[in-house]
Amino acid sequence: MTKPINIGIIGAGRIARVHAENLVYRIPEAKVLAVADVIYDAAQKLASAFQIPASFPDAGAIFDDARIDAVLICSSTDTHAQMIESAAAARKHIFCEKPIALDLAKIDHALDAVKRAGVKLQIGFNRRFDPSFKRVREMIASGQIGAPHILRITSRDPAPPPMAYVQVSGGIFLDMTIHDFDMARFLFGEVVEVYATGNVLVDPEIGKAGDVDTAVVTLKFANGAIGVIDNSRKAIYGYDQRIEAFGSGGVAIANNKTPDTVVASDGAGVHSAKPLYFFLERYMDAFASEMREFIAAIAQDKPTPVTGIDGRVPVVMGYAALKSLKENRPVKLLEVGG
Amino acid sequence: MTKPINIGIIGAGRIARVHAENLVYRIPEAKVLAVADVIYDAAQKLASAFQIPASFPDAGAIFDDARIDAVLICSSTDTHAQMIESAAAARKHIFCEKPIALDLAKIDHALDAVKRAGVKLQIGFNRRFDPSFKRVREMIASGQIGAPHILRITSRDPAPPPMAYVQVSGGIFLDMTIHDFDMARFLFGEVVEVYATGNVLVDPEIGKAGDVDTAVVTLKFANGAIGVIDNSRKAIYGYDQRIEAFGSGGVAIANNKTPDTVVASDGAGVHSAKPLYFFLERYMDAFASEMREFIAAIAQDKPTPVTGIDGRVPVVMGYAALKSLKENRPVKLLEVGG
Amino acid sequence: MTKPINIGIIGAGRIARVHAENLVYRIPEAKVLAVADVIYDAAQKLASAFQIPASFPDAGAIFDDARIDAVLICSSTDTHAQMIESAAAARKHIFCEKPIALDLAKIDHALDAVKRAGVKLQIGFNRRFDPSFKRVREMIASGQIGAPHILRITSRDPAPPPMAYVQVSGGIFLDMTIHDFDMARFLFGEVVEVYATGNVLVDPEIGKAGDVDTAVVTLKFANGAIGVIDNSRKAIYGYDQRIEAFGSGGVAIANNKTPDTVVASDGAGVHSAKPLYFFLERYMDAFASEMREFIAAIAQDKPTPVTGIDGRVPVVMGYAALKSLKENRPVKLLEVGG
Amino acid sequence: MTKPINIGIIGAGRIARVHAENLVYRIPEAKVLAVADVIYDAAQKLASAFQIPASFPDAGAIFDDARIDAVLICSSTDTHAQMIESAAAARKHIFCEKPIALDLAKIDHALDAVKRAGVKLQIGFNRRFDPSFKRVREMIASGQIGAPHILRITSRDPAPPPMAYVQVSGGIFLDMTIHDFDMARFLFGEVVEVYATGNVLVDPEIGKAGDVDTAVVTLKFANGAIGVIDNSRKAIYGYDQRIEAFGSGGVAIANNKTPDTVVASDGAGVHSAKPLYFFLERYMDAFASEMREFIAAIAQDKPTPVTGIDGRVPVVMGYAALKSLKENRPVKLLEVGG
Repeated sequence: MTKPINIGIIGAGRIARVHAENLVYRIPEAKVLAVADVIYDAAQKLASAFQIPASFPDAGAIFDDARIDAVLICSSTDTHAQMIESAAAARKHIFCEKPIALDLAKIDHALDAVKRAGVKLQIGFNRRFDPSFKRVREMIASGQIGAPHILRITSRDPAPPPMAYVQVSGGIFLDMTIHDFDMARFLFGEVVEVYATGNVLVDPEIGKAGDVDTAVVTLKFANGAIGVIDNSRKAIYGYDQRIEAFGSGGVAIANNKTPDTVVASDGAGVHSAKPLYFFLERYMDAFASEMREFIAAIAQDKPTPVTGIDGRVPVVMGYAALKSLKENRPVKLLEVGG
Repeated sequence: MTKPINIGIIGAGRIARVHAENLVYRIPEAKVLAVADVIYDAAQKLASAFQIPASFPDAGAIFDDARIDAVLICSSTDTHAQMIESAAAARKHIFCEKPIALDLAKIDHALDAVKRAGVKLQIGFNRRFDPSFKRVREMIASGQIGAPHILRITSRDPAPPPMAYVQVSGGIFLDMTIHDFDMARFLFGEVVEVYATGNVLVDPEIGKAGDVDTAVVTLKFANGAIGVIDNSRKAIYGYDQRIEAFGSGGVAIANNKTPDTVVASDGAGVHSAKPLYFFLERYMDAFASEMREFIAAIAQDKPTPVTGIDGRVPVVMGYAALKSLKENRPVKLLEVGG
Repeated sequence: MTKPINIGIIGAGRIARVHAENLVYRIPEAKVLAVADVIYDAAQKLASAFQIPASFPDAGAIFDDARIDAVLICSSTDTHAQMIESAAAARKHIFCEKPIALDLAKIDHALDAVKRAGVKLQIGFNRRFDPSFKRVREMIASGQIGAPHILRITSRDPAPPPMAYVQVSGGIFLDMTIHDFDMARFLFGEVVEVYATGNVLVDPEIGKAGDVDTAVVTLKFANGAIGVIDNSRKAIYGYDQRIEAFGSGGVAIANNKTPDTVVASDGAGVHSAKPLYFFLERYMDAFASEMREFIAAIAQDKPTPVTGIDGRVPVVMGYAALKSLKENRPVKLLEVGG
Repeated sequence: MTKPINIGIIGAGRIARVHAENLVYRIPEAKVLAVADVIYDAAQKLASAFQIPASFPDAGAIFDDARIDAVLICSSTDTHAQMIESAAAARKHIFCEKPIALDLAKIDHALDAVKRAGVKLQIGFNRRFDPSFKRVREMIASGQIGAPHILRITSRDPAPPPMAYVQVSGGIFLDMTIHDFDMARFLFGEVVEVYATGNVLVDPEIGKAGDVDTAVVTLKFANGAIGVIDNSRKAIYGYDQRIEAFGSGGVAIANNKTPDTVVASDGAGVHSAKPLYFFLERYMDAFASEMREFIAAIAQDKPTPVTGIDGRVPVVMGYAALKSLKENRPVKLLEVGG
C-alpha cells in the first residue's frame, strides 16, 4: 500500500463526525492525524471516538503540522473563507463544507488564495454522489433522455432547523436551495436567470426572521431548458429528495430512499415505509463517496469532482433568488455577480 | 324508470363520438335524439354508428326540436360562444367543450345569455372526473394533506397537434395548459398571479407559429400556496398526467395510468408498461363520468359540477400566462380581466 | 354492417347481467333476443333493464327460436351439461360458464353432443382475457422469459361464498382453484401431476362442510417446469390475483389492479389503494373481451379461444387435487381421468 | 469504553473478509487479533488488508491464545463441526457459518460440546438480519398480519456455483434452500412436513452431479399454516430474494433491493434497476448486523439470536426435502431426525 493521505479535521460537529467515521473506517487510503475545534472538549471527544491521535482547540496546530496533506473544513459557515485562506497558505489540500461564504467578495478572495497556492479544493455538495442522482446524471450524459427540456427538483426537509440557525443561515435559498442549485447545474448545466416565489406556511417564526419556509424557484438554463425547484422546510413524512429530468428521449426520475422494501396490505390500504427521515441516513453513501473521491483526487493528483467555482455559482444563484423574491421579478445571474 | 333526458349533439367529431358512445351505451337515463354537423356526412355517420334517430347539417334543427332537453356543444372552438347563446335562447341545458371562447367579452356575453335563460351549463373539463385526480381532491377536502402548501401538475402530451391546429388554438396556454389551470383551481382554489416561462424545444415550426412547446408556469394561490405546472407538447413515452398536492399533513401523488400491471425483469433491467398514450383512453372513465354527472344535474335539478365561471377563469389564467411569457414578469389575473 | 349474431341468455343471475350489459352496450355485432330463467321474475327484470325483447321461464323457448344463433349458459352449475346438450341439439353455438359439470362422464357426454352437432363451444374462463395475464402469455409465447421454469399463481378471494354455495360448489379446487388450473395450462401448458395441501384457517364452518379454505397446490408440467398455486377464501385487503412466470430469460409478474393511482405519504407511512375488491370490477375488461371474442368466433367461423377440452382438463386437475389432499400424496392426472 | 471482545477468525476466504471488514471498521466493541487459514498466504493477505496483528496457517494458534474471547468459523463446511468442538474445548465463544455439518450425528456431537463448555454459539443465518425480512418478522410478531396462513419465499441465485462446489455442497436443499428453511422457521415457526419437487432446467451438469437446479418445496407448519419456497440456481436478472407473509389480517411482502431508485421512461417502456446481483451486496447490512449482535451477545452475556438448534433444524428440513424429492411424497421431519 502506498503512503496514506494524512488528514486534519477542523470542526468537531455532526458533519465532522460523519467524515471522520468514513475516513477512519471506510477509506484505508487516508489517515486522520488530528482534529481541532474551538470547543476543545468536542475535539477531544471526536478524537477519542475514532482513535484520532491528536486534538486541538485551534486549527493553527493543524496548519502547522507538516505531515498533514489535507484538511476538512467543517467549522461554522462564517469561518469557512478564512480557514480556506489559512489552509491554502499552509499548502494543504482542502475539503470545505458548503457554502464557502455568504459574501461573494470573500468567496472570490478565498478562491484566489487557493489558486495561488495551487492546492486542491473540493466543496461539500454531497448529493452529487448519491447513487440515484449520479445515475440520472449518467443517463443525461449518455443521451438516454435526449436533449434536456425540463428539470424538476423536489427538496423538502423533515423539519425546520432551530430558529437560532435560521437567523444566521442566510435564508432558505443560501442554506437549503443552494444544494438544489448545485444539483441543477450538475444535471442540466449553467443557469442564466431565476424567478423565486416563497411564503411562510410552516412556521410564523421563520417569517419574523425575514425568511420564507416554502418556495418554488424557476430556472432558465443556458441551453434553453427550464427548471423548477420546490422547497419546504417541513415534510411530515420525512426527507423528500426527488429529481426528474425530462428530455426529447424520455424522462428519468430519482425517487426517495426507504429503510426497507416491505409493502403491507390490510383492510385499510397498501402501506410502505416512509423515506429516510434524516439527511445523514439519506446521504450516507453519498458522504462516504464524496470523501473517497476527495482522497482519490489528491492521491492521483487529478481535479476534484466539485471545484471552487462549483462552490461559488450556487451562492450567486441564491442571491438572484433572494433578489427575485424581494422584487417579485425574474433576475439574471449577471445582475448579482454571476 | 323516469323519462329520459333527451339530448342533441352539435358537432360530430372525435369528442362528439366519445360522448355519444357514453350516452347511448352507458347512461340509460339519457337518449340521444339528434346530431348536427356542418359536415353533414359526419353527422350521418355518427347517427348511424350509435342508432341516433336524426342527423342534420345545421344545429338549428336541434334548437328547434322541443323534445330536446339539452345539447352538447362539440363543434369547433370558434363556434362555442354563439352555440351557447343559441342554445340558451332555445332553453336547452348546455354541455360545452372547453374553452368557451378565446375572447373574454364573448365568454361574458355567452355566460350572460345562460344566466338570463336560467338553463344549466357544464364545461367539458373532463380531468376533474378522473378517479385519481378526484381522489386527490377528496383527500384535500377531507384534510388528509393538511393545509395546502405546494401543488405540482405535470401535463405532457405524447405528440404535438397538427400545425394547422396550433395556429388557431390560441397557443399552448389556452389550448393545453387551460386544463391544468382548471385542475389547479379544482384542487387548491383561486389563483391571483402567474409567472410563465416557455421555450421552443420540440418543434421549430411551433416557434414559427409564435407559440412555445415547453413551458413552466408558477401560480400564487389566494390561500398562500404555490403551484407549478410543467408542460411539454411531446413526451416520447406517452401521455404524462400527474399531480402532486403537498401540505402540512402530507402529500398525495396521482400517477399515470397504464394498460396493464405487468413488471418484467430480464438481463437488461426491470420493465413495465408506458402510460396510456392517447387522451381518450387515459380519460375514458372521466369522459363517461362527466357526462353522467351532467345528465344527473339536469334530472335532479342541481348545479352542474363545472360551471360557467369555471369555464371563464382558466381563460383569464391563460391570458395572464401569455402576457407573463411575453413580458417576462409575474402577472396578476386582475391585470387581464380576472 | 353485417347481420348481427342473435343471442339467447339462459339464466338471469349476476353473471348473466354482466354478459347482457356487454352484449347490449359494447358489442354492436351481437343482439340479445331473449333471456330465460326458472325464476321468471329475474328473467323479466333482466330483459327490462337491457331492452331485451323477450323473456321466458324456460330455456326451451330459446332453443326453439330459429332466429337465435347462440346461447349463453349462465344457469346453475348442475344444469350446465344438460343445457349444453339441448343447445347442441338445437344447433346453437354455446358459451357456457365454468365448470361444465362436476362429473367427468357428464362433461364427456356434453362435449360429445357439441362435437356431433358441429357447433362452437366456449367456456367462461374469463381470466385469460385480462389484459395483464394476456400480456404475460404473450411474453411467454414470444420467448421473452425464455424456457419456462417456475409459475406462481396467487388467487385469493376477498371473502368466502355463502355456506349454502360452499356445500354444492364441489369444494375449493373445483370452484375456485379451477380458474388457476386453467391459467396454469394457458401459460405453461399441460400438467401431469399435482400435489395439494390445504387447511381450514378462515372459517370452521367451511371445515364442517368438508372443505378447506386455504390451499397450496404444486404442479408438475409436461415440459418439466414447476408451478405453485396459493389460494385463500379470504384476503382482508381485497381480491388478490397475481401471476409470476419465471424462466431462463427472466420473469414476468402481473400485479393487482387498483381503482386509482394515488400514493399518499403522511406521518404514518406511504399509502395507496387496495386491489379492486369485487371480481366483476377486477375482470370487467376481461368479461367484455371474452364475449367479444365469442361473437367474433361465430361471425368469422373460427375456433373459440377456450374450447370444450379447456373446460374438461381443469376439472380433472380439480379431482387430482382433491384426491391428493385426501391421500396426502402427489396424484397424476391420469389417475383421475386425465 | 469497556474492554473490546477479542476475536480470532478461522478461514480467510470471501465470507471471512466480509466479517473482518465489519469487525475492524464498523464494530468498535470488537478487536480482531488473529486470522488462520490452511492456505497461509490467504491468512497473511487478510491480516495485512485489515491491520490484523497475527496470522497463522493453523487454527490451533487461535485456540491457544488466551486473550481471544471468540472465534468466527469461516473455514470449509466439512471442518465446521470439528472446529466448533475445538473452540468449545478452548472455551471460546463461537460464530459459525452455516451449515454446522451435513451429518446430523456430527451436528449433535458439536452442539453437545458447546453445551458442555457453556460457550455461546451463533449460526450464520445472515438473512434474519436483513432490514426488510426483520420488518416482516416484527409485523408478524406484533399481529399486523393476523394469524399466519400462507408463507411464500422466493430465493433465486443469479448464477449457479462452480460444479466443484455443487458436488460437495450436499445439494440444493442443504446448500441453498437451507437459508429459506431457516427463514420459514424465523417467520412462521416450526415445520412438521415438507414436500419437494425439483428439476434440472438450468444446467444439465448439475443433473449429472445428482442434484436439481430448480425446486419448489411445500411446508406444513405446526400452527396449520402452509409455506412454499421456490428456488432457482439462475435468475438472469440478479439475486431474487422475496418473502410474502399472508394471514387473516393482511399480507406483508418484502421486495428486492436495488442499487438506485431511478425510474426511466422512454419510447420502449418504463425501466428501473435490477435487484443487486451479488449476495454480499444484497445482504451487506445483514452481515454487519449479525456480527454486531454476536459481539453484543458476548459483551452483555445474553443469548445469541441464532442458536445451535437453529443451525440443526434446517439441516433436518434439508434431509426431509431430499427424501421427499427422491421418493416423491411428503416427508415428516420426524422421519429424518427432526
